[in-house]
Amino acid sequence: MKIKCKEGNKLMKNRIAVIDLGSNTTRLIIMGYKSQHCFKLIHEVRETVRLAEGIGADGKLRPQPIYRAIEALKMFNALCKATGVEQVVAVATSALREATNQAEFLADVKREAGLTLRVLSAKEEAYYGYLGVVNSLLLNDGFVFDIGGGSTEIAEVQRRFFGRYFSRQAGVVRFTEQFVNSDPINKRDLRALEQATSEIFADLKWLCNGPGQMLVGIGGTVRNLARIDQKRQKYPLDRSHNYILSQEAVEIIFDLLVSNSSQRRKAALPGLKADRVDVILAGTVIIRHLLKKGGFTELVVAGQGLREGLFYEHFLNEYNPPLFPDMRAFSVQSLAEVYEYEAAHAQKVRELSLSLFDQLQPLHGYGAWERELLAYAALLHDIGMQVNYYDHHKHSAYLVMNAALQGFSHREVVILALLVRLHRKGDVDLGEYGVLLQPDEAQRLAKLGSILRISEYLERSKSQVVQKLQVDLDKDPFQIRVFAQGDAMIEVWDANRNTNLLKKAFGREFEAVLA
Amino acid sequence: MKIKCKEGNKLMKNRIAVIDLGSNTTRLIIMGYKSQHCFKLIHEVRETVRLAEGIGADGKLRPQPIYRAIEALKMFNALCKATGVEQVVAVATSALREATNQAEFLADVKREAGLTLRVLSAKEEAYYGYLGVVNSLLLNDGFVFDIGGGSTEIAEVQRRFFGRYFSRQAGVVRFTEQFVNSDPINKRDLRALEQATSEIFADLKWLCNGPGQMLVGIGGTVRNLARIDQKRQKYPLDRSHNYILSQEAVEIIFDLLVSNSSQRRKAALPGLKADRVDVILAGTVIIRHLLKKGGFTELVVAGQGLREGLFYEHFLNEYNPPLFPDMRAFSVQSLAEVYEYEAAHAQKVRELSLSLFDQLQPLHGYGAWERELLAYAALLHDIGMQVNYYDHHKHSAYLVMNAALQGFSHREVVILALLVRLHRKGDVDLGEYGVLLQPDEAQRLAKLGSILRISEYLERSKSQVVQKLQVDLDKDPFQIRVFAQGDAMIEVWDANRNTNLLKKAFGREFEAVLA
Repeated sequence: MKIKCKEGNKLMKNRIAVIDLGSNTTRLIIMGYKSQHCFKLIHEVRETVRLAEGIGADGKLRPQPIYRAIEALKMFNALCKATGVEQVVAVATSALREATNQAEFLADVKREAGLTLRVLSAKEEAYYGYLGVVNSLLLNDGFVFDIGGGSTEIAEVQRRFFGRYFSRQAGVVRFTEQFVNSDPINKRDLRALEQATSEIFADLKWLCNGPGQMLVGIGGTVRNLARIDQKRQKYPLDRSHNYILSQEAVEIIFDLLVSNSSQRRKAALPGLKADRVDVILAGTVIIRHLLKKGGFTELVVAGQGLREGLFYEHFLNEYNPPLFPDMRAFSVQSLAEVYEYEAAHAQKVRELSLSLFDQLQPLHGYGAWERELLAYAALLHDIGMQVNYYDHHKHSAYLVMNAALQGFSHREVVILALLVRLHRKGDVDLGEYGVLLQPDEAQRLAKLGSILRISEYLERSKSQVVQKLQVDLDKDPFQIRVFAQGDAMIEVWDANRNTNLLKKAFGREFEAVLA
Repeated sequence: MKIKCKEGNKLMKNRIAVIDLGSNTTRLIIMGYKSQHCFKLIHEVRETVRLAEGIGADGKLRPQPIYRAIEALKMFNALCKATGVEQVVAVATSALREATNQAEFLADVKREAGLTLRVLSAKEEAYYGYLGVVNSLLLNDGFVFDIGGGSTEIAEVQRRFFGRYFSRQAGVVRFTEQFVNSDPINKRDLRALEQATSEIFADLKWLCNGPGQMLVGIGGTVRNLARIDQKRQKYPLDRSHNYILSQEAVEIIFDLLVSNSSQRRKAALPGLKADRVDVILAGTVIIRHLLKKGGFTELVVAGQGLREGLFYEHFLNEYNPPLFPDMRAFSVQSLAEVYEYEAAHAQKVRELSLSLFDQLQPLHGYGAWERELLAYAALLHDIGMQVNYYDHHKHSAYLVMNAALQGFSHREVVILALLVRLHRKGDVDLGEYGVLLQPDEAQRLAKLGSILRISEYLERSKSQVVQKLQVDLDKDPFQIRVFAQGDAMIEVWDANRNTNLLKKAFGREFEAVLA
């Protein structure tokens, strides 16, 4: 018996690797993609190399860190070769930018690891971080800061474009080595660290909160703070990308870091990563400073940055600057296609949903935002069929919840997941996600979910037989007149068996009738 | 921007529908498939038609049930046409078999619903039920009973082959109408019902428990009893297929059914389906009788039966009888392919896992069963990559848990899911599934999971560079000698970073070294 059903996804067969040799960690990502079409992360490796360790007054990288870096890069290159990577983009940042033995190191890397490292300028470092962020979360205006081991970059974002930038050697490894000589840190060291932070950003004049301005943070420190805060809050999602970290949360963690020695931090701060135990304090001091300086009360954590920015430059090379024209639509469409959605059916459910949404507008009063989410939920409602026909609404919710959807807030992801879950049956159930939602969300979900559900049943045979819907709100029950091309008997029959949620949501009976 | 990544699964484009007009319910399933290769359920509709309702001494189907049946069949046929079904297999069972107005009804159906109904003989009804069961759960020897609205069929299974069969008009609708005239049932009615049950099966001489014999039940009554029992037990899985229903559970539910009126049953028996509130008692009486008569202390619930049997006859038409040669392997392979697993990588992880399993045999003492599960887990370990690279081990577990894996017990499904979850990181965590597992399962999972994990890291670059492993148990730490064709540096490096679970599971340090 031959059971070869598919040949695997030939369309994402292109492979590109991005290697980022930072001052603290070095990372490799390998992406599978088809240019302009779709992509997915297929490999990620991370090593704490601490290349910037021990750099003294002579500005030279030390032998041990050099050795560790070359060993890591050798392995990364071997992995790239083994996995059929066609193109390796390898970059180095601050540690190497300033190293007096840069040329020697680059030659060593070339000879021993077979890699040509591109040393990014401060501007480039800021730019690629920005590019990773604006292509993965909704950021129109604001600032992106990237705190690394050797430096901090800040980029200004204006209507999604790259504006001014700022770069200084305020890195967590560097600052820790320079100022943190006591454990737990004593007052004098802390004062020196804060003083140095304040001075190094003294020239940064344009970081300033205002209407519609967002502050976004990249880098291991920010991600780790998010993780710690999520553990503290028992946050129901396990992802840092797009997490909102409040100033208060940063303050609480800062206090815990100051009052605990490195050894005790692991226990005092669940979620703290072992390789950040020592350097996270310096990073937190920098973040506190930036929040205060700009007058921000929160920051948005980005899980994508420099490496992804380098990838997007390649992936979106048709666009200048390389930005997704519509990140959310792209992301939803890609997701639907990964699970081989039935396009004609999903589009029809979307069309019927939006028609009902518009006609019921006087009753729900919702706007463009709800309409957009409803449209996405309609496209995605059936993707769980690939997991199992039974309970496929639950599987769709799981897949939406766990997909790498770009440009959606956590709240929006939860709404999408709960909406697709409602498409067949069941009542609104916020489950553990209530804390991410607004007080009126259950009602919103019931209204949007019931519209989605009735549209699904009006497309029961998946044959696009229904052409138009006309809602008559003067009738009691409310009447949905169904204009069909062909036999819509099963549609009307099943729609009428499934008006429960509509009734609950809108407080009135509904009835579908053939026009 | 075009974002068409895939064209959808062209390979499962064949469509077959099976319609089963029973005495209580009528159902439609539509399967997408490629003959011999793979299949999936893509539509299911169910209507409680109660065709057998009100049949009197004249043996005639009544006008109301006939009308309901034809309306349902019309819709089913419309749905088949709309979804591009190429072949409709429509059958009717007991109610029609005995109806004195059968010919008239068949003509009506043909004329009004456009369907040619095939009336199954009692033997055929028993056979197709058997076929659905032996192709979806592991049954070598035993008995399959199918309690419907109009009749009960029992099939004998010997080494997976169809043996004797038995069929009588012991159906839940029929018996309810004949004997249940009080609510809650009074002693006299109950005695009459039990008496009739006993008499109708009096000729059944060969239903008898013995070594290696299994009793399997099909039909709505059995499935609903499973559901009720699962609610009572707070069973962590939401599926009846392959659920083991004990005699004690049947007794408890029976007592509740006898002591509660139809109206109160819904509250007294969470999980009881609304359209079975009345007829479930008669079904339970039949099940009790069969358990006692055969001397069985439990039965296995089958979620597949007649309809699936008709499908398998078509799907497996190269085989005589139409049985999967290796259901478990087929099912695992199909699952892997749906998620576009990387075959060469998975096969290599499987090979390395089995090699380590065999060489560590003196330490774990496990046998063929564990070896088989380990092999399947190796094939499936990465399927969650399609959901998201991050946490893909968890997604793999979810997909395994929720797939329609055939031929695996609930315990085995949980073991597979927990094994794939262990392939990258983390410790054994039984979660809510502990109740399905054996006391030594955590240890078993740690041992098998650590073998899987080290094999995964020994295939880190997914390039099949490792050719052979030789374990030296005389060394301390235990040594895994790695024979590679090409550069296995990254494999050995990453394997050695990930020996934690091995150490925990086997109580000794392990070390991978290049041979």
